[in-house]
Amino acid sequence: METEEVAAAEQVVTPFEVSAPDGAIDYDKLVDRFGCQRIDAAIVDRIARLTLCPPHRFLRRGIFFAHRDLNKILDLYEAGEKFYLYTGRGPSSESLHLGHLIPFMLTKYLQDAFMVPLVIQLTDDEKFLWKNLTIAECKRLARENAKDIIACGFDVERTFIFTDINYVGGAFFENVLQVANHVTLNNLRGIFGTILEDRIGKVIFPAIQAAPSFPSSFPHLFPGNDQLRCLIPCAIDQFCIIGVVSTCQDTARDPYFRMTRDVAPKIGFQKPSLIESRFFPALQGESTKMSASDPNSAIYVTDSSEQIKAKVNKYAFSSGQASVELHRKLGGNLDVDVPIKYLNFFLEDDDELDHIKKEYSEGRMLTGEVKQRLIAVLSELVARHQRARAQVTEEMVDAFMAVRPRPNMFG
Amino acid sequence: METEEVAAAEQVVTPFEVSAPDGAIDYDKLVDRFGCQRIDAAIVDRIARLTLCPPHRFLRRGIFFAHRDLNKILDLYEAGEKFYLYTGRGPSSESLHLGHLIPFMLTKYLQDAFMVPLVIQLTDDEKFLWKNLTIAECKRLARENAKDIIACGFDVERTFIFTDINYVGGAFFENVLQVANHVTLNNLRGIFGTILEDRIGKVIFPAIQAAPSFPSSFPHLFPGNDQLRCLIPCAIDQFCIIGVVSTCQDTARDPYFRMTRDVAPKIGFQKPSLIESRFFPALQGESTKMSASDPNSAIYVTDSSEQIKAKVNKYAFSSGQASVELHRKLGGNLDVDVPIKYLNFFLEDDDELDHIKKEYSEGRMLTGEVKQRLIAVLSELVARHQRARAQVTEEMVDAFMAVRPRPNMFG
Repeated sequence: METEEVAAAEQVVTPFEVSAPDGAIDYDKLVDRFGCQRIDAAIVDRIARLTLCPPHRFLRRGIFFAHRDLNKILDLYEAGEKFYLYTGRGPSSESLHLGHLIPFMLTKYLQDAFMVPLVIQLTDDEKFLWKNLTIAECKRLARENAKDIIACGFDVERTFIFTDINYVGGAFFENVLQVANHVTLNNLRGIFGTILEDRIGKVIFPAIQAAPSFPSSFPHLFPGNDQLRCLIPCAIDQFCIIGVVSTCQDTARDPYFRMTRDVAPKIGFQKPSLIESRFFPALQGESTKMSASDPNSAIYVTDSSEQIKAKVNKYAFSSGQASVELHRKLGGNLDVDVPIKYLNFFLEDDDELDHIKKEYSEGRMLTGEVKQRLIAVLSELVARHQRARAQVTEEMVDAFMAVRPRPNMFG
Repeated sequence: METEEVAAAEQVVTPFEVSAPDGAIDYDKLVDRFGCQRIDAAIVDRIARLTLCPPHRFLRRGIFFAHRDLNKILDLYEAGEKFYLYTGRGPSSESLHLGHLIPFMLTKYLQDAFMVPLVIQLTDDEKFLWKNLTIAECKRLARENAKDIIACGFDVERTFIFTDINYVGGAFFENVLQVANHVTLNNLRGIFGTILEDRIGKVIFPAIQAAPSFPSSFPHLFPGNDQLRCLIPCAIDQFCIIGVVSTCQDTARDPYFRMTRDVAPKIGFQKPSLIESRFFPALQGESTKMSASDPNSAIYVTDSSEQIKAKVNKYAFSSGQASVELHRKLGGNLDVDVPIKYLNFFLEDDDELDHIKKEYSEGRMLTGEVKQRLIAVLSELVARHQRARAQVTEEMVDAFMAVRPRPNMFG
């Protein structure tokens, strides 16, 4: 198996834990230890050249920093072949925070740039199995989350959103069985730490998350196209766990997909490619977790401008110095400063971002000024999302979830 | 858990093994050790009285010898409530042998006597996971086996036959999840000997076999009737295995259903009731197995009269004595004699059966004569099955498998 835990002396990034004692994660080490590849400037340039689209800021800034076999996707695309995108979400909470939006933002860009179809899996079964929720509640949350996802701007003619509880069956279930026939409990123990106290639902879920990587799971979309390649935008910050820690936030995706890539050739499919983002930090900093039980650890898409202002001002970890005088002299530390990190994710203008970083790190710009700019950026982003979500009707959800061909999905 | 292995010094009956060194299984001990109840004359009389039907020979002769909570079903039936039947088969072989027919024969009788609906699960997924077969082959075998099952005479207006690969999904999948959320790997280890080398497909299958015990798995049949009780006719001779013995014939049903009964109240359902048959012996005797790899160990529903005659004459284990003279003096041993056991299963006439037993055990009837009668009985049974099966069309299979209401299923 490709699967490998990452555990260096100074940082721990496993399916179970992420920590960076000094507040900054070393992504080069992470790439080495996970055995994936860096997304470098050459790849970003190539994407721009192939798609004739300017690269998304998440690519220009190395926020999606690592990949597995992205080059194979690009080689085939250059030769005139298409692929499809697969991403998803475990619908565990009523409202999403900004970290949840990141894979969808990049996926939206990729769908538009490459003009390819997209499948979005809402793992309501996972949330039932991991959280103390009823099936009805998980189904409701999945539908609510679908509205937030649709609000990101996906094209209904190229996008199929499904919930596991509604969609598992038929050709999809056949692929679940195929995967489940090639993964042992020992394999899962190596990847997720599965133990004999675990319930068997948790044991089967990895196969359910693997199945959308294979085009034959969607006969209404890709009939007779079993070798179509799949690209999975995957937030590496969806860290955490299967089984052991019951209070986990989200289930780690990368280990699932490393398992999927191991199994794919054994059951006659292409390995899915992956493109993986950096950790999106909690307001309190990279070494803490965003937690549903602490609403002040994250900005939610339902927050008001006032809430955003209050949270950023009060909770966003700043590297600014203790006094204005000291700050003017020493400046801020860009590696750990949360407002700077958030601007790096969400401020579109590269020149302005560079300017802020320079001014702040050299002490000419104060924490309060950086936070003020961040509040404006986030307020606008969240308000725009709220406006878009208010337009999403139940009928639109039904249309995205309809099991029907999308005849123009590659057009 | 109710689950308990049976291991006495003189006999071994576990999910993994059945043996009776002296060729005869002590069913009283088996009932005690499994913790089920005997089907006694009072229960058989009660069924006859409630249904106004003469009891099936499998009941009169104690072939279905044990039950779990059958009285609860009868109490409710007496009070005017209905229930539904659930049985099934793992479609691992092209043609069924007589042992495979036994649960279906009793089920047909129960369906007619109680006028109740029936669901029949064909576990093509199980066979994919346990045997070295493709999914396409398992699906094909399931459909072929469905024809043999339909040939047993079930009423299409009261019977829903489904294959897991086609039907798992929706409400059924929700119940799979519910079960899978209440069974741990440790539970499975206790029941089936699940080990870390097992593939995860085998780990989820028990939940898939449990789900049909709950009426909400069939919303097209039992909408809003979630407390409807389920009665499962179950051949205890479908002994064997999960995971450990790769050459298993059939997966044991009783352990699955003891697990299901443990889980049922935890997820808001009634415990299914069970009615369980004796072991149907191989031609070579009760301490051997019918084996697909040895066609001479069983009579198949595809056998010709000549094959039946040759198999019975050559392979059916006889307790007749070494010489006619000795046999006249000592007689046969009814406890181990296979032709007598087979007549006990299949000869309808009680008086004739008693006569044969008496004459044979007291030495007046010879082995050859008993075998001759058995050959006639089996030839007629098999020929009748073959005629019925020849009438089963693909359209009839589709009709039994159609996911549609059966409005007259209780009528």
